[in-house]
Amino acid sequence: MQKTLNVGIVGYKFMGRAHSNAYRQVAAFFPDVAFHPVMKAICGRDEEAVRAAATQLGWEGYETDWRKLVARDDIDLIDISTPSDTHNPVAVAAAEHGKHIFCEKPLARDMSEARRMLAVVRQAGVIAMVNFNYRRVPAVQLAKQLIDEGRIGQIYHWRCAYLQEGGADPQRPITWRQQKEHAGSGAVGDLGVHVIDLARFLIGDITAVTGLTTTFIKQRPIAGAEDQTGTVDVDDAALWLARFANGAIGSFEVTKLARGRRNYNSFEINGSKGSIVFNLERLNELNVVFADDPPEIRGFRNILVTDRSHKYVSAWWPAGHIIGWEHTFTHGIYDLLNGIGSGTTPAATFVDGLRAQAVVEAVERSSGSGSWIEPDYSE
Amino acid sequence: MQKTLNVGIVGYKFMGRAHSNAYRQVAAFFPDVAFHPVMKAICGRDEEAVRAAATQLGWEGYETDWRKLVARDDIDLIDISTPSDTHNPVAVAAAEHGKHIFCEKPLARDMSEARRMLAVVRQAGVIAMVNFNYRRVPAVQLAKQLIDEGRIGQIYHWRCAYLQEGGADPQRPITWRQQKEHAGSGAVGDLGVHVIDLARFLIGDITAVTGLTTTFIKQRPIAGAEDQTGTVDVDDAALWLARFANGAIGSFEVTKLARGRRNYNSFEINGSKGSIVFNLERLNELNVVFADDPPEIRGFRNILVTDRSHKYVSAWWPAGHIIGWEHTFTHGIYDLLNGIGSGTTPAATFVDGLRAQAVVEAVERSSGSGSWIEPDYSE
Amino acid sequence: MQKTLNVGIVGYKFMGRAHSNAYRQVAAFFPDVAFHPVMKAICGRDEEAVRAAATQLGWEGYETDWRKLVARDDIDLIDISTPSDTHNPVAVAAAEHGKHIFCEKPLARDMSEARRMLAVVRQAGVIAMVNFNYRRVPAVQLAKQLIDEGRIGQIYHWRCAYLQEGGADPQRPITWRQQKEHAGSGAVGDLGVHVIDLARFLIGDITAVTGLTTTFIKQRPIAGAEDQTGTVDVDDAALWLARFANGAIGSFEVTKLARGRRNYNSFEINGSKGSIVFNLERLNELNVVFADDPPEIRGFRNILVTDRSHKYVSAWWPAGHIIGWEHTFTHGIYDLLNGIGSGTTPAATFVDGLRAQAVVEAVERSSGSGSWIEPDYSE
Amino acid sequence: MQKTLNVGIVGYKFMGRAHSNAYRQVAAFFPDVAFHPVMKAICGRDEEAVRAAATQLGWEGYETDWRKLVARDDIDLIDISTPSDTHNPVAVAAAEHGKHIFCEKPLARDMSEARRMLAVVRQAGVIAMVNFNYRRVPAVQLAKQLIDEGRIGQIYHWRCAYLQEGGADPQRPITWRQQKEHAGSGAVGDLGVHVIDLARFLIGDITAVTGLTTTFIKQRPIAGAEDQTGTVDVDDAALWLARFANGAIGSFEVTKLARGRRNYNSFEINGSKGSIVFNLERLNELNVVFADDPPEIRGFRNILVTDRSHKYVSAWWPAGHIIGWEHTFTHGIYDLLNGIGSGTTPAATFVDGLRAQAVVEAVERSSGSGSWIEPDYSE
Repeated sequence: MQKTLNVGIVGYKFMGRAHSNAYRQVAAFFPDVAFHPVMKAICGRDEEAVRAAATQLGWEGYETDWRKLVARDDIDLIDISTPSDTHNPVAVAAAEHGKHIFCEKPLARDMSEARRMLAVVRQAGVIAMVNFNYRRVPAVQLAKQLIDEGRIGQIYHWRCAYLQEGGADPQRPITWRQQKEHAGSGAVGDLGVHVIDLARFLIGDITAVTGLTTTFIKQRPIAGAEDQTGTVDVDDAALWLARFANGAIGSFEVTKLARGRRNYNSFEINGSKGSIVFNLERLNELNVVFADDPPEIRGFRNILVTDRSHKYVSAWWPAGHIIGWEHTFTHGIYDLLNGIGSGTTPAATFVDGLRAQAVVEAVERSSGSGSWIEPDYSE
Repeated sequence: MQKTLNVGIVGYKFMGRAHSNAYRQVAAFFPDVAFHPVMKAICGRDEEAVRAAATQLGWEGYETDWRKLVARDDIDLIDISTPSDTHNPVAVAAAEHGKHIFCEKPLARDMSEARRMLAVVRQAGVIAMVNFNYRRVPAVQLAKQLIDEGRIGQIYHWRCAYLQEGGADPQRPITWRQQKEHAGSGAVGDLGVHVIDLARFLIGDITAVTGLTTTFIKQRPIAGAEDQTGTVDVDDAALWLARFANGAIGSFEVTKLARGRRNYNSFEINGSKGSIVFNLERLNELNVVFADDPPEIRGFRNILVTDRSHKYVSAWWPAGHIIGWEHTFTHGIYDLLNGIGSGTTPAATFVDGLRAQAVVEAVERSSGSGSWIEPDYSE
Repeated sequence: MQKTLNVGIVGYKFMGRAHSNAYRQVAAFFPDVAFHPVMKAICGRDEEAVRAAATQLGWEGYETDWRKLVARDDIDLIDISTPSDTHNPVAVAAAEHGKHIFCEKPLARDMSEARRMLAVVRQAGVIAMVNFNYRRVPAVQLAKQLIDEGRIGQIYHWRCAYLQEGGADPQRPITWRQQKEHAGSGAVGDLGVHVIDLARFLIGDITAVTGLTTTFIKQRPIAGAEDQTGTVDVDDAALWLARFANGAIGSFEVTKLARGRRNYNSFEINGSKGSIVFNLERLNELNVVFADDPPEIRGFRNILVTDRSHKYVSAWWPAGHIIGWEHTFTHGIYDLLNGIGSGTTPAATFVDGLRAQAVVEAVERSSGSGSWIEPDYSE
Repeated sequence: MQKTLNVGIVGYKFMGRAHSNAYRQVAAFFPDVAFHPVMKAICGRDEEAVRAAATQLGWEGYETDWRKLVARDDIDLIDISTPSDTHNPVAVAAAEHGKHIFCEKPLARDMSEARRMLAVVRQAGVIAMVNFNYRRVPAVQLAKQLIDEGRIGQIYHWRCAYLQEGGADPQRPITWRQQKEHAGSGAVGDLGVHVIDLARFLIGDITAVTGLTTTFIKQRPIAGAEDQTGTVDVDDAALWLARFANGAIGSFEVTKLARGRRNYNSFEINGSKGSIVFNLERLNELNVVFADDPPEIRGFRNILVTDRSHKYVSAWWPAGHIIGWEHTFTHGIYDLLNGIGSGTTPAATFVDGLRAQAVVEAVERSSGSGSWIEPDYSE
């Protein structure tokens, strides 16, 4: 008899849809998953909208108050797919009710929130995972594997740029993402935290950063009141350099002002024995070169990461049949459910979330001070 | 109250999994679909396997005899996801029971089967669609739109190559796809029929072909009896040239012996006003050049076909979040269910299936005769 | 003391400029060349133009009648850089005067010319080379080397397309290249002969072809009399299939009507152990995949063919400093001068030129007959 | 009667060869150049080697002491193709003898040298140019043109990485480039100064930088004494961030430790109306996207920068016939000779050279101090 686990989710927009899809899909493609998720309830403040979402996305019921959701006895796992300002209260309450947690990134708006969340989930002894979904792109897993196997050698360089164009049109109205109160941070907190986590996953911990954050477009129209403008009080672009604990050096860039770059989360790694190049717009591919190939036939190999031997891939389709962006969420839910089954928190843990947040804050502080800052990883 | 439509599927392997996924997904992403499919039963001869498939893939029940499935009163739509030799009997029986039909490609093993299938579904007045899923790649839809809008001008050239490597290892055991009795044809019937349909969709009807089919690897081990070999009596590669009704000329190539090409279904179109380049391994991209761009800034535009304005795309994710291969099936089921709702058969119809089969047979005959052959499109 | 060889050239336009450059450059980059060429005289009918060309291109003097040039005692090597209709008379006269010959492709307008030219140079015992310059792209040499070493295994497929857009504008005036009297053939003779030679170089001899030639744009303005039009009596596009002596099969396409393709001479080779992909617009690169790479790191290697180990490359610049199109001519002249030094005709010989011409004619005849034609290689 | 200008060059190795080629080629391809260069003498300390170089590279004679060369009455222009430590003494002496100067980059080892050189050439009133050759890649010129025409809009981002692998092998012996005494700086001075100049050319002046330089491989074998090692006292990699006077922000990276990157000088520019992407390994291409293209057909245009309308290109070959790395030197010499003709120093001037050096030093100082540094542009 298949074991099941009851899930309640907060949020029904972009992330709510992506997470819901993962719960619907996981057991169909990963039948060995430790639990089949039962999609009990979805939560949002707008009753009409959340009821429609429940129907569309496959949830048995809905709630309009997350406090009720986290208190329900029939829920085992709380999924937090809402804007950043809600992560802390929902996660804390969920943990206090003994629920496992799947929390969208970034973990929190600031370190004080992150520390409290970590403390509470530790105290509660629940499984609590942050959804840094790009760790679960099969090509990124292959990069990790090659590094761990020593195929790339000593890592010298990490170079990443997460480029989007969503902020490039100054006539696009302001949203919660451009408001510090709700988002905590701008491109750094939204995009930067993704690449910080990827860098931590692939290279290791960051010991110091220096950088700058900037806001090129400082006023935006208010939706529904286009003759008024709202002030953007978070960054729309940021650059920073980093030193890693293992001796590597890194450069990071995030921006919402890169025309033509839709979701260009890209990185390159150079090591003593090889290099790796990736970008999310071609997420099924990894480019890798090995120094020990004979020079006349040495070059970046364009690997279509759809072979059965690649992590997560055998669950899907035969080689050459590419997967999409949302599959990374299904991989995450698969690992989460297995983690709950085994009692082991899969990465990214709340410690990972906190450490990424510590780097975000170090970047912001270095932008203010103009100097190198060591992230404060204290928990 | 949402209208529903009951579905029964024959086949639970590669195609059965892909079709099942589409039924599960369609209403979650296309809530305006005319019917929500109800996944009533899946059918296969191996009871244990088909019961497990029903559970995994989300079907309410199962059958072990397709004759029973097509006779069930509670089924509205029969989905045929089995090897080619079953398409004819299942489709004919389904139509005779008044069921709508969704049939995997190729329509049939030969023209006599195709003609009978067309006649029966016409007689029955059911909606009957062939799953040429690559028509429903958003990038292919964009190609079609640009051609229809006249942006490419008069079409001169169609050039396609569907390259796979699945047959390149001579030690890989023989399967039904290498046996004429089951598959009808080899690379021509499996891959060729896809590119013939794409050519018909994008360029129009083919009036004559000359070509060759060949079998490079003629003996293969028998699975489970590796000391014996079976004879491959279908082609593993084929080439042909074509003339189109609109005056264009075309080249076609299909092979299962192209090392490094996993699922490289590629085409290029050259017209008087522009060119289009596509390949399925990067199915989210279309490369297009327009002759009337100023020469100093003219070049192939690499379009990431994930914008809301692109067909099917707004159902999924924001721009830059790519989709995978299986999404094309969901698009097809969406169109099919809407077609059943409106009483209009969506392409590819059984006529399209028959006409593609006519070209397959013309290629095979030209390979034998060494001369140009006009496809016999008679129904 | 450096040995020298005196050169006279016929033609001062596109090819004359490219050949002249090669004579100027060869000894500076290949100081071990058997002879330093002395650029004695350039020949053209327009005295003012040819005098200017002599000055600009570095020739000591000029002639206005090629008959005088080929008769000059102080000339050792005649370079034929003129349109195709002059190749036969100039080459025959040059050989009769005992001159070595470097002849632009195609060798001749037709087989009767080709046979006569071959017979005369054989009789004269001179070194006579046809400038199929794409053999001497370092990346093409690497392809050849990999094939010869068995790294690609048994060759199954040759697939090439030489795409240009020069003929796509119907308002572009007619030139000698669109007139059978001068050019002998259209896209087949101009572009097709290049890819036929590449196929022969890389795969081997062609035993049969079937194809079609067509002329999409049949009338063009006459330069200087734009109210009149001239009739294009050669093809502007052609397609053909081929069988090779070694069992491989091939597809060929040439067109001058491919918008956006400037000089896209491309090929792909699939063998039992690997594949090779090349295009001339990125002539410094070769893409190669090896079947025996482990599946998780197998993919096309993008090789920047600028390593010292690559043929011809060490004469130029350090790795990563790319060369241009014209360098292929310098490589050809280098091999020619060494061939004269050693008494061995370097490929492409006049036999190669004749055999390529035989395939051109087989393509043209198959286009007329609609059937497979075996090239008539008789000399 | 063609005007001529007499040239003497110091240096006969990599740069000497590349510059010599440009003098040989310029008048053949740019017949309108103001002067035809006469290649009078090449200078090097090793008499046998320099005599051979004179013969091979096309110089009338040679010298073994640059002091004699710069003093010769029959020399109009001194070309400095030697390591960085000689730039200052040779340039100063040349200017004092009233010679025009073409100086390899970087201008000098440090600012004091650069200031002296600038002062002396100003005093002498000679034309003095620094060879930042990448300004003269046609694709880079196209980038500049698009920016100047406002097609990219307000510039937000400059992002560049000049990646090589030449230093990645720790067994490669030490050269002058790894010694501060001769090179002044490592990757920053060698590669960084190139990208600083490109950034200044395309974006404008840099107002502040913060960065780090590092030396991953600190000991290398000594050629000819492999049991001993020499100390690398310059950087082999560097990263820095920059603010530009026009409000843009930039990231820069240079390294000699990037496996698989042969000569990957790459940049991306994001502006309010478009983006530009370039890399030197594909120097004939520029990728450009325009924000005002309709979304369904918007994407990076891959422009093959070989059209007659592109700067410098019409001198060479028809569209689609790519040029190589060395052509950039010919373009520079063309502009220099014309500058001498018109009495106007073409960029990069010695002021440009000094300003690039000022940024190099600011990077080095910021690496030491950990803070943002404003370049000291004082002359």
